[in-house]
Amino acid sequence: GDAEAGKAKAAMCAACHGANGKAAIPTYPNLAGQNAPYLEAAMKAYKSGDRKGGQAPVMTSMMASLSDADIANLAAYYSGL
Amino acid sequence: GDAEAGKAKAAMCAACHGANGKAAIPTYPNLAGQNAPYLEAAMKAYKSGDRKGGQAPVMTSMMASLSDADIANLAAYYSGL
Repeated sequence: GDAEAGKAKAAMCAACHGANGKAAIPTYPNLAGQNAPYLEAAMKAYKSGDRKGGQAPVMTSMMASLSDADIANLAAYYSGL
Repeated sequence: GDAEAGKAKAAMCAACHGANGKAAIPTYPNLAGQNAPYLEAAMKAYKSGDRKGGQAPVMTSMMASLSDADIANLAAYYSGL
């Protein structure tokens, strides 16, 4: 993925995951330095509905507007923080 | 949770998540320094079946043998790494 393009998309994530990828609230995961392939798999699991319960519905709605390329770019961005 | 008790339980996790919480394979998440409440919620989501697809079935089987206390202890252990 392209981290710069991911950074542009990350504005909507920062509210919960922090501007630097350190979650604002401890019930949300830190994303900074997380493995990019895992982040992609997790986002796609929310998008497909493979993840339910808790904050999953919020994440699923966030993912609805993202393409696979956006997801790859976001994963590259956060894994590089 | 009790990190020491968590460390004792973590032997079965190390194969994929690494002895130091840095995942052996990038499709698995790093756990070191992740937020404990998030880790608990994630483990419980695997245990309840709220998470499916990918490696979810492996995680669900791992969780089957763990009590809520074990889960809290594992979360304390990995968040402290």
